[in-house]
Amino acid sequence: MPRPSVRGKLVDAGYETLFSQGFQGSSIQDITEAAGVPKGSFFNHFKTKEALVLEALARYEEVGRGDLLFDETKPPLQRLRQHFEFLADRLEGWDFNRGCMIGNFATEMADAYPVVREALLGALTRWTDAVASVLRSAQTAGEIDPRHDADLLARFLVNGWEGAVIRLRIVRNRQPLDEFFAICFGMLLK
Amino acid sequence: MPRPSVRGKLVDAGYETLFSQGFQGSSIQDITEAAGVPKGSFFNHFKTKEALVLEALARYEEVGRGDLLFDETKPPLQRLRQHFEFLADRLEGWDFNRGCMIGNFATEMADAYPVVREALLGALTRWTDAVASVLRSAQTAGEIDPRHDADLLARFLVNGWEGAVIRLRIVRNRQPLDEFFAICFGMLLK
Repeated sequence: MPRPSVRGKLVDAGYETLFSQGFQGSSIQDITEAAGVPKGSFFNHFKTKEALVLEALARYEEVGRGDLLFDETKPPLQRLRQHFEFLADRLEGWDFNRGCMIGNFATEMADAYPVVREALLGALTRWTDAVASVLRSAQTAGEIDPRHDADLLARFLVNGWEGAVIRLRIVRNRQPLDEFFAICFGMLLK
Repeated sequence: MPRPSVRGKLVDAGYETLFSQGFQGSSIQDITEAAGVPKGSFFNHFKTKEALVLEALARYEEVGRGDLLFDETKPPLQRLRQHFEFLADRLEGWDFNRGCMIGNFATEMADAYPVVREALLGALTRWTDAVASVLRSAQTAGEIDPRHDADLLARFLVNGWEGAVIRLRIVRNRQPLDEFFAICFGMLLK
């Protein structure tokens, strides 16, 4: 493996630090220290801390196993469940910390940072569209009612997930996610 | 009206500042400046900035029109709708900024501030319990299926609201809230 570049180290450290401490809670010094690079090197690679937020968000999308939604060896609803189970297991592995980076930055930055808001809109739209696509496949496969509006239902599911993650951070257990599965797969997706 | 005390001014200013700028984004100086009181006076009234977060959360609960849920002159589902419509109109009035204070502090503070997390748990539980109580009344009144688990459904509704608020901050329009109403009152609450 090639040695990671300074820029690569900053992206790795920025992803971890911004995710666990938030934007305001992460100083540039926190990030350069976590990266093991000189503080002054930050601005050789990024104009602002917001620019690193965009990289962290892109990384978050990359590692979110969106591919599970498109594993065509499995029936559509099973793919959908596996995608959310991946996210649930990851949250549990983080001891119910961190939450969802999209929800976090939406909460902390969407009002005041239009460029971040645009990036969040892209990430949220791609995720929701992927879920809608699986729902349409589930309709074609006869797994759910073809009369549902797949796009509307996908937005509602993703929102429900985001809200379950908020409750999870307060209650510190899997119950909100387990209930998301129970209601979505038990009541909504029929 | 009595002249507001320094403490009262700090609570008023803390509510506004912490809500619009977040915990990390609000310095004590931001709060004392907004309150029009000397910076040094803060610590005469609050040990920490977290202590003011607890006051802001209590204020948020007070002004959330939970009473609309218990207006027994109206049928239960109508009360539920009016409660969420109050919240929706308020978010629109804020130009889709601010979001929900419970979701905001859950995102920013629940991991690292156990005392705030406890207060969030109280606020979220009281809100959810009030919604569950209305759902039980709706079951008694024959408005929704008595076989639903009202507590489970209440948690899911409140989570769905929180997630819709996250999407709203990204898309900057009412659509996520309108869709929450459409799916909750059109599909779930039957």
